[in-house]
Amino acid sequence: MSYIAPIRDMMFDLEHLAGLESISKLPGFEDATPDTAAAVLEECGKFNRDVIAPLNREGDLHPSAWADGKVTTTPGFKQAFRQFVDGGWQGLQHSAEFGGQGLPKSISAACTEMLNSANLSFALCPLLSDGAIEALLTAGTDAQKQRYIPRLISGEWTGTMNLTEPQAGSDLALVRSRAEPQGDGTYRLFGQKIYITYGEHDMADNIVHLVLARLPDAPAGVKGISLFIVLKVLEDGRRNDVWCASIEHKLGIKASPTAVLIYGDGKGEVGTGAIGELVGEANRGLEYMFIMMNAARYAVGLQGIAVAERAYQKAAAYAKDRVQSRPVDGSAAQSVSIVHHPDVRRMLMTMRALTEGCRALALVAASLHDVGRAHPDAGQRAAHEAAYEFLVPLVKGYSTEMSIEVASLGVQVHGGMGFIEETGAAQYYRDARILTIYEGTTAIQANDLVGRKTVRDGGALALHFAARVSKVEEALTATGDAQAVAMAGQLRQAREAYAQVVAFVAAHGKSDPNTVFAGSVPYLMLAGNLMAGWQMAQSWLATRDLPADEAAFAQAKRATAAFYCAHILPRCGGLRDAVLSGADSVMALPVEAF
Amino acid sequence: MSYIAPIRDMMFDLEHLAGLESISKLPGFEDATPDTAAAVLEECGKFNRDVIAPLNREGDLHPSAWADGKVTTTPGFKQAFRQFVDGGWQGLQHSAEFGGQGLPKSISAACTEMLNSANLSFALCPLLSDGAIEALLTAGTDAQKQRYIPRLISGEWTGTMNLTEPQAGSDLALVRSRAEPQGDGTYRLFGQKIYITYGEHDMADNIVHLVLARLPDAPAGVKGISLFIVLKVLEDGRRNDVWCASIEHKLGIKASPTAVLIYGDGKGEVGTGAIGELVGEANRGLEYMFIMMNAARYAVGLQGIAVAERAYQKAAAYAKDRVQSRPVDGSAAQSVSIVHHPDVRRMLMTMRALTEGCRALALVAASLHDVGRAHPDAGQRAAHEAAYEFLVPLVKGYSTEMSIEVASLGVQVHGGMGFIEETGAAQYYRDARILTIYEGTTAIQANDLVGRKTVRDGGALALHFAARVSKVEEALTATGDAQAVAMAGQLRQAREAYAQVVAFVAAHGKSDPNTVFAGSVPYLMLAGNLMAGWQMAQSWLATRDLPADEAAFAQAKRATAAFYCAHILPRCGGLRDAVLSGADSVMALPVEAF
Repeated sequence: MSYIAPIRDMMFDLEHLAGLESISKLPGFEDATPDTAAAVLEECGKFNRDVIAPLNREGDLHPSAWADGKVTTTPGFKQAFRQFVDGGWQGLQHSAEFGGQGLPKSISAACTEMLNSANLSFALCPLLSDGAIEALLTAGTDAQKQRYIPRLISGEWTGTMNLTEPQAGSDLALVRSRAEPQGDGTYRLFGQKIYITYGEHDMADNIVHLVLARLPDAPAGVKGISLFIVLKVLEDGRRNDVWCASIEHKLGIKASPTAVLIYGDGKGEVGTGAIGELVGEANRGLEYMFIMMNAARYAVGLQGIAVAERAYQKAAAYAKDRVQSRPVDGSAAQSVSIVHHPDVRRMLMTMRALTEGCRALALVAASLHDVGRAHPDAGQRAAHEAAYEFLVPLVKGYSTEMSIEVASLGVQVHGGMGFIEETGAAQYYRDARILTIYEGTTAIQANDLVGRKTVRDGGALALHFAARVSKVEEALTATGDAQAVAMAGQLRQAREAYAQVVAFVAAHGKSDPNTVFAGSVPYLMLAGNLMAGWQMAQSWLATRDLPADEAAFAQAKRATAAFYCAHILPRCGGLRDAVLSGADSVMALPVEAF
Repeated sequence: MSYIAPIRDMMFDLEHLAGLESISKLPGFEDATPDTAAAVLEECGKFNRDVIAPLNREGDLHPSAWADGKVTTTPGFKQAFRQFVDGGWQGLQHSAEFGGQGLPKSISAACTEMLNSANLSFALCPLLSDGAIEALLTAGTDAQKQRYIPRLISGEWTGTMNLTEPQAGSDLALVRSRAEPQGDGTYRLFGQKIYITYGEHDMADNIVHLVLARLPDAPAGVKGISLFIVLKVLEDGRRNDVWCASIEHKLGIKASPTAVLIYGDGKGEVGTGAIGELVGEANRGLEYMFIMMNAARYAVGLQGIAVAERAYQKAAAYAKDRVQSRPVDGSAAQSVSIVHHPDVRRMLMTMRALTEGCRALALVAASLHDVGRAHPDAGQRAAHEAAYEFLVPLVKGYSTEMSIEVASLGVQVHGGMGFIEETGAAQYYRDARILTIYEGTTAIQANDLVGRKTVRDGGALALHFAARVSKVEEALTATGDAQAVAMAGQLRQAREAYAQVVAFVAAHGKSDPNTVFAGSVPYLMLAGNLMAGWQMAQSWLATRDLPADEAAFAQAKRATAAFYCAHILPRCGGLRDAVLSGADSVMALPVEAF
């Protein structure tokens, strides 16, 4: 089966949770009305279904291939990328000043999800270009913005992020690549970078590498790293001294080339050392990279939702088709399609509830970013941006962890067929596995949640979210509806667990870091679970505003929300207990005993 | 790194949890003393480390290959299999009457774990021979036993289980293969079987297929299925009419050939129809298959533990080696190996605790089986066998579900390296994914737990286990040790959650099956979690009996047990809530809404 974009669900989230109507009243977003959004999503869904999705399995069977320093992408990718950029999809969220559409992040996020559902490997190329654009917008000069951004949006060029080195993964303080000033404002770069997504490919004429490297006089550690632009081919046509030594053989996202890049081998047409230019100020590279990474982290969260949605669609279709065994309740004398069996239903509901919950949270987060960017009031901007930043590690960490669970359930629903590669369910299980690792592992997200987002303000913002959740509990209780009242109780328990954990983290974060960081990932999982559940509960309430002809959608949304509260939220208690147990049992084993 | 068998941990379980000393006092097991066990395990560990483990990655890179109906296994497999059978490993648990060693299951289980840690794909061949031997012991005539079992033990021949057909997976009532009596006591078989592990290969001269098929006059459904033996090559040397049409391209266990077998194509040297013989009585095939499957299910549980152990060893070695980032507690000014970071420690402890807990439970289960077989008192035999059978779906279901979690954590510990196939961590993640599917999915195990093991006796046996758990709580509390008292509290909470669920399942199992089966897998996960935790708690108590020179082992075991209770047991509360929420939210969504 092909991929069908969940447009109805996305529009519901945008209109009823993310406040798209009010975003379209902000300066600069006047065109972003719900009608426009619906039209964009419709078009985007068709494009991804027809052009991008059919290349997904193809990419798994015929991955990008390396030969003599060049990478040939999966057959069809180059043409599809041309259609993608020509359709204006690369510029969706970027400013019209540089050739983009200037749509709010909330709308572009829905489109990004679709692209990733259709083809995770393909989507990484535009995602990295987005990252490069963000970095240039953050720290580039006007001339740099004018030179690079329009060509990244047109897809003439694509972008990369060059952070990792063999000895420097999560720990970028260990970066060793160096940049030597040439006295003419340019630099020569030397070093080896690994895990460079789309670091070499044949889908565009040129590649804009954004590279972390050290200047000769730079201080040690993270405060001595600068950001550089290195073009694969200089604008005068000379081949620069950056080379793809190999690409990795990976568990998943095989079509996406993961390059080892060597800077300064002397094999190009420019002498030895890749010619580059500084972005922003010297020694502030990591800071710029983090701004860009925030956007990329959010996008990886969308990838989690995207692969979960695709896995769900495939599993649901199979479960409705595959006939096996009689119903346990004796409601039929014959074998029935397996969707009728309670445990298959439980698996599908789990997949669906996690996916919808994470989508709702991600789109609400995007809307906070939109208000944070466009609101005329500076205080409102700051408050919304802070709320967005609080949610980014949850969107990234929780959505990607759940995507592995969902993709694994998708295999399970297929039974033996799920283990056969031809079926396709296994590809999602393999593809999803990178998402909790790249752009910062779940532990790195959790460090961010604990350190910058919780301990720094004593848990104030985290508890502000708890207060918002409790308002939803009140609203659910006030309906008097039995299902809603039950949900309110489940939400309350989860929220109280969260509040206990926030208090614990805020209290011990500085005095006893091991105690807090031993539970950082359980805290992230608890917080993500609760926030997605909060949005599902809010969805339940919002279904009451839907017109009569939406009754089927409303019923499905309420059922899924109720399932989330009954089956997913209860995990919070165990996570709370794990966090509150502290570091003792986590750190007790001596290193040599492992 | 190579595989190092966890012999110390296994011997601890056997001696202090599984009561090996008292098993060796039972008739027939006189040789199975702890000293013998230690010697066997030592030898087995060396053999698997040196001969079998090195072929694991090899099998992933060079899977079994099909051509013209023949399957060539991974280079080295054939020779290794010869060494395996010549070493007597195939006959470890089988009767000396047929050339085996007659050791108890508790010892052979430890050896089976090692073989599967070393190489899951390789281990499947002996596992299937074991299954065939069990089936013949259960239902074969003396002549059949004498004809087949010695040659299966010597490895001259290997065995298979032919159950699944394209339309008949979990639902064997749908089996269509047919057997036509020839009037001379033999039968001709026709039909297509799929997912036949080692259904064709080059590691032995002949294959004994155990095949489910229908006789012409058989009733419809499960009560019309008979069990047949079909040899690949008849004893007179003629090639029988059973053919391997293809093998599957799978997500994992790639070296293990998964065959499509066609019976009755007419291409052999015997005319049309594969010549076979009946095993046991007509129409009782499924019953025999289930007896054999119980053994196979237990063995698949061991596979889960095995792959988890291997994934843990690899991740622990990497974490001790990989240097990245300074400690969060400021205890070092330089970057340290990542094992020092609390979240890496949490992941490793989770892997370790789940693996040790499931191993302990599996070995205790095996010891119940041993007593159930060998005890002179019939009542004792029956009681122990019933206890074993209660635990089989937990050993199978929980150990395999946890193996996916552990293998996935193993990838995560490796960071980006984990996603690169060369590293090897990804192979465990792929291999483990079959374990919750074959020999009955987790849902099928859960159905067994709910139906035959809980509802049938009103939850009596399930609650008997709860009573045993509460004795351990008392013993922990009685120590007065702060850690033990905390563990007792955690165990009590989990046990109370379990008891609530058992009462719920027993009360509604017959009257409202959907309500119970909607929570059957959460019930299984809760029960497995508690039972493994019970054994870890028991282990904590048992460490007090260890001599002074075992202090390091004792300390590690206590730390791991404490971690299990603090971090893994708390999951039980959420599982309880999910079960008790019943079928409403699970079944609410109309089929067409998926």
